[in-house]
Amino acid sequence: MLNRNSPIGVFDSGLGGLTVVAALKHLLPNESIIYFGDTARVPYGTKSAVTVTHFSQQIASFLLKKKVKMIVVACNTASATALPKLQDKRNIPIIGVIHPGAKAASDLTRNNHIGVIGTTATIHSGAYFNALRDINPDLVIESIACPLFVPLVEEGWTEGSVATLVARRYLEPFSQNCVDTVILGCTHYPLLKDIIRISLPESVQLVDSAEAVSCEVEKQLQKRDALADSSQQELTCFVTDFPRKFEELGEHFLGESLPDVSLVHLD
Amino acid sequence: MLNRNSPIGVFDSGLGGLTVVAALKHLLPNESIIYFGDTARVPYGTKSAVTVTHFSQQIASFLLKKKVKMIVVACNTASATALPKLQDKRNIPIIGVIHPGAKAASDLTRNNHIGVIGTTATIHSGAYFNALRDINPDLVIESIACPLFVPLVEEGWTEGSVATLVARRYLEPFSQNCVDTVILGCTHYPLLKDIIRISLPESVQLVDSAEAVSCEVEKQLQKRDALADSSQQELTCFVTDFPRKFEELGEHFLGESLPDVSLVHLD
Repeated sequence: MLNRNSPIGVFDSGLGGLTVVAALKHLLPNESIIYFGDTARVPYGTKSAVTVTHFSQQIASFLLKKKVKMIVVACNTASATALPKLQDKRNIPIIGVIHPGAKAASDLTRNNHIGVIGTTATIHSGAYFNALRDINPDLVIESIACPLFVPLVEEGWTEGSVATLVARRYLEPFSQNCVDTVILGCTHYPLLKDIIRISLPESVQLVDSAEAVSCEVEKQLQKRDALADSSQQELTCFVTDFPRKFEELGEHFLGESLPDVSLVHLD
Repeated sequence: MLNRNSPIGVFDSGLGGLTVVAALKHLLPNESIIYFGDTARVPYGTKSAVTVTHFSQQIASFLLKKKVKMIVVACNTASATALPKLQDKRNIPIIGVIHPGAKAASDLTRNNHIGVIGTTATIHSGAYFNALRDINPDLVIESIACPLFVPLVEEGWTEGSVATLVARRYLEPFSQNCVDTVILGCTHYPLLKDIIRISLPESVQLVDSAEAVSCEVEKQLQKRDALADSSQQELTCFVTDFPRKFEELGEHFLGESLPDVSLVHLD
C-alpha cells in the first residue's frame, strides 16, 4: 500500500529530467517531487549498461530512503539499460520514459513510420525499437544517435547556425524517407524542439516523452489509489556536483526558478 | 630514491591523455607507462574542483599501488584544480600539463600576447593565467572556454563544416586582437589542430602541451637519476568503463594500436 502523500522520486544523470518534472507539475499539481541529478557523473549517454545500472541502483536506494512512493527514471539512457534491474525486488512502481514515449508515438503515427533520436547509449540499446515493435510489429523504425545535441543544449546554443547545421546533418535521413513521427528520446531535446522542427519536413510530428511519462505516472498512481490529496506540493532537489550551477541552469529546463538544491555524495 | 625501471603513471578523465603518452613514447622510448582513463566519469571539464580532486585522489592511489615512479596528470582540468592536493604527502614527482604548456608558450611568444583555449573548468580555474603571469608578469593573456570541442572530437567530427563553424565561432576573438601564440589547453585539442589553425591568423603559433610535458618528465627523471635503462618498454592501460571502445578510439589519440585494456572500478 503506497502512502498517497509521499513524494514521487525522479532522477536523471543531470538537468534534463527537469523537463519531466515540469510536465509532472503541470499534470499533477498536488504531488510533491524529489529530484535527483547525478551531475558529478553526467552524462550517462556515452557509458556502458553496467556502469549506468550501477549508478542508477545507487540513486534508487537513495530515493527509497527518502520514502518516495514511486520512481520515475527521467533519463532515457538509464530507462533503456537499467530499468528491469531497478524494478527487481522493489515494492513501489518504477517507470521509465521509453515505453510511454513509444506508446504515444505509435498512437500518433498515420503511416507506421517512426523515427527515434537519442544519445548513443539509448539508440544502441535498441530500447525504443523493441518497445515500439512490442506495441505494433508492423511499425517501420529509423533510429539516429545525436551525441552532439546534449553538449549543444548545455552550451546554450539551442538556436543559430551551429545548432541548425548539426541538426540538419543528423536528421537528414528522416527527410529522405517517410517517417511521420519522431520521438525526442532524450530529456535534453525538448530544448532543441524548434531547431529539430525546422530540420524536418513540416508534416512530421514530434513526441516529447516528458509529457507521455507524466500521463503514465497519473495512471499508475490512480490504479493504486495513491494520488496525493494534499495541496502541499513541494519540489526538493539533490545533485552530486555543482548545486548552484544546477539552480541557475535548471530554470531553462523547469520553466520556473528552482528551490534550494542540496549536494550529496554517493561514492 | 626512485626505482629507475618502474613505470611512469599517466592519467586523464578519458582518452585525451593518450596524446601525452604518444609524446612520452616518442621522447623517452625506454620508459614503461601505466595509463589510467576514468571513462566511467568522463568528462571532468564540466565538474567542480572538489569532485575532480576526489576522483584524482582515487586514481593517484591506484597508480601508487602499481609502484609508479612518477605521475603525470595528463588532464588539464585535474592539473588546474587538483595538483597541489595530489602532491601533498606523496614522495614521488607528480606533474601536470599546465606549467610546461605555459612555459613553452612564454618562450615562443614574440609580442607577449598569449591565447589559451580549454574546457570550462580549466579556463575558469585561471590556472593557465596564473602560471603564465608567474613566469612573466608582463604577458597579456586571453582565455576562451570551448566546451563543444571535446564532444566534436569524440563524435569524430574533427573536420568539415560543423567543426569549422564551431572553431570559428569560439576563436573569433583571437583574430580581433594581437595574440601570436595559442595554448591548446586540453589533451583532446591536438586532434582539432588543423581546424584550429585555419580558424586563426596564419602567424599564430600553437602550443601542444603534450610535447611540453614530455620534456618536463625527462628533466625531472634526469634530475633524480631515474631514467629507465632497460629497453623493456611496456604500455599498460586501465579504464573504468568501455575497455573495448577505448582500445578502438584510443588509436586516433596514440597514433598506433593499443595493447589490451583492463577494466577497474574505483567506487
